[in-house]
Amino acid sequence: MYPVFCSKKLKAPEHQVAGHSAKEGRLGPLVDGEGRFFKPFQHDFRGENEARFYKFFSSNKKAPDHIHGYFPAYHDIQVVEASNGSGKLPHVVLEDVVSDYLRPTIMDTKIGSRTWYPDVSERYFNKCMRKDRRTTSVPLGFRISGFKIFDHQESSYWMPDKKVVHGYNVDEARLAFRKFVSSNSLADSIPDCAFASDVYGGSNGILAQLLELKAWFETQTLYHLNSSSVLMFYENDESVLMKGGDDAVRAQVKLIDFAHFVDGNGVIDHNFLGGLCSFIKLIQDILESSDKSDETGTYRFGNGH
Amino acid sequence: MYPVFCSKKLKAPEHQVAGHSAKEGRLGPLVDGEGRFFKPFQHDFRGENEARFYKFFSSNKKAPDHIHGYFPAYHDIQVVEASNGSGKLPHVVLEDVVSDYLRPTIMDTKIGSRTWYPDVSERYFNKCMRKDRRTTSVPLGFRISGFKIFDHQESSYWMPDKKVVHGYNVDEARLAFRKFVSSNSLADSIPDCAFASDVYGGSNGILAQLLELKAWFETQTLYHLNSSSVLMFYENDESVLMKGGDDAVRAQVKLIDFAHFVDGNGVIDHNFLGGLCSFIKLIQDILESSDKSDETGTYRFGNGH
Repeated sequence: MYPVFCSKKLKAPEHQVAGHSAKEGRLGPLVDGEGRFFKPFQHDFRGENEARFYKFFSSNKKAPDHIHGYFPAYHDIQVVEASNGSGKLPHVVLEDVVSDYLRPTIMDTKIGSRTWYPDVSERYFNKCMRKDRRTTSVPLGFRISGFKIFDHQESSYWMPDKKVVHGYNVDEARLAFRKFVSSNSLADSIPDCAFASDVYGGSNGILAQLLELKAWFETQTLYHLNSSSVLMFYENDESVLMKGGDDAVRAQVKLIDFAHFVDGNGVIDHNFLGGLCSFIKLIQDILESSDKSDETGTYRFGNGH
Repeated sequence: MYPVFCSKKLKAPEHQVAGHSAKEGRLGPLVDGEGRFFKPFQHDFRGENEARFYKFFSSNKKAPDHIHGYFPAYHDIQVVEASNGSGKLPHVVLEDVVSDYLRPTIMDTKIGSRTWYPDVSERYFNKCMRKDRRTTSVPLGFRISGFKIFDHQESSYWMPDKKVVHGYNVDEARLAFRKFVSSNSLADSIPDCAFASDVYGGSNGILAQLLELKAWFETQTLYHLNSSSVLMFYENDESVLMKGGDDAVRAQVKLIDFAHFVDGNGVIDHNFLGGLCSFIKLIQDILESSDKSDETGTYRFGNGH
């Protein structure tokens, strides 16, 4: 049914921050080191549903070109050896979005105050509802699934444990978004937001991209993206950052995880849109407060080198 | 504690379409026929909470003037004879927003896919959740609480039963929004949307007002309006409509029902905003399709008179 692919050595992705991991012999996504990301079909309907999304969406001319750019490019479906040694399994083959970043700093945020949707089983509804209420999904409209930040003071990545991240309250989530664009994320309690204007701001920054997506979600009635994520990342290698500017950091937003998408049936995805607007407001607040610190001479990356 | 008011004869409002009614000896709001609307304190915390909202909001300078105009003006709290004969009770005294309309056509829509909110009791959570899932709240982001439409062919109001309205699915809700701006709401199955461009469209129409509110909800973090409604209404008297134009119909949007508001704590009201955007999209769709019918010569009110 699907082409069998076995000419390349696949390995667990180095920069995955959320979701099922292929490490330690479990089932998870793989990369080929040449720009392709292999996501195994999950059990029950979910793998099929996500594959269906990518197949339909990648050829859907109703979504404008600039919006297609916010989704990982879809290649095909291939049968490859699963990461857990259970044999060959179909995988959705996608663009590996961070493959050409030297030191990507990445955050995966699940959008929407509600991850369940009409017609799911009571069991799934209850499971989602428990998580939505326990996390920031209900109060904030989204929850951080995971992130990793390159800390320049420690010269190493900081990636807090999933359980810690999932336990964040609203203030802790806000803090994580500040640390995400700071040079001192790990050691200091007060993030310097040194990269806020380059990463979040600017004409090509995260905020500008999110506002383009928002405009689309205000009118698109093709899909409801339940339990989907905004993945945001930027180049955090010092050699690149020293150049400065938003071109150097190559901040990007990608939407991922469509195992639970449903057809829009003429209604906008108000759950995703509401969460996205809350996400946008959080970033606008950081940009506003970091503009003020700039004016009063706070530390910025590169000063003193 | 509150001034006692007994100089005027109060009566049940003629044009109430949703909520507790003072008719048939029950507890409900009253009007004085001179532009004031008396809303009795509901049991438990809700009356106090709504009074708190109006008191705080009416003097809140953080909300711009044009936004204040989307809320009924707040006068004070007065103790008057309750409509159910139970004796004197505090009432929030508000502007009676439809008092100077001859034949108001009115719709009350509860905004948000979620009417519960953090920290409510499990009992209240379960009650809200059942209603949110059974109605259009979850799929559409809002549900119609009630409406009345003046039908020009029948020369009478049409006000469907609450139970019928609460049982609407998404398509039936969409149809009600079309009937709301039609001259043939009652008799015909295909609404003519004769007043769509005057009521929904134009620089002072419903859509323009909703877009102003949307812009505010994208940034305001003062309040989360749980279980609140958009009340929309216009002048549907034939003498006025014959003049034509959006000035004549005086279409207005007011936000009402704040018994369940909570403080925003620095987060936008993503639940209200998402629902509002879905409401806006529905109205944009009607305007778009009625523009097309205009071009092809469909009946408009006033033709043939």
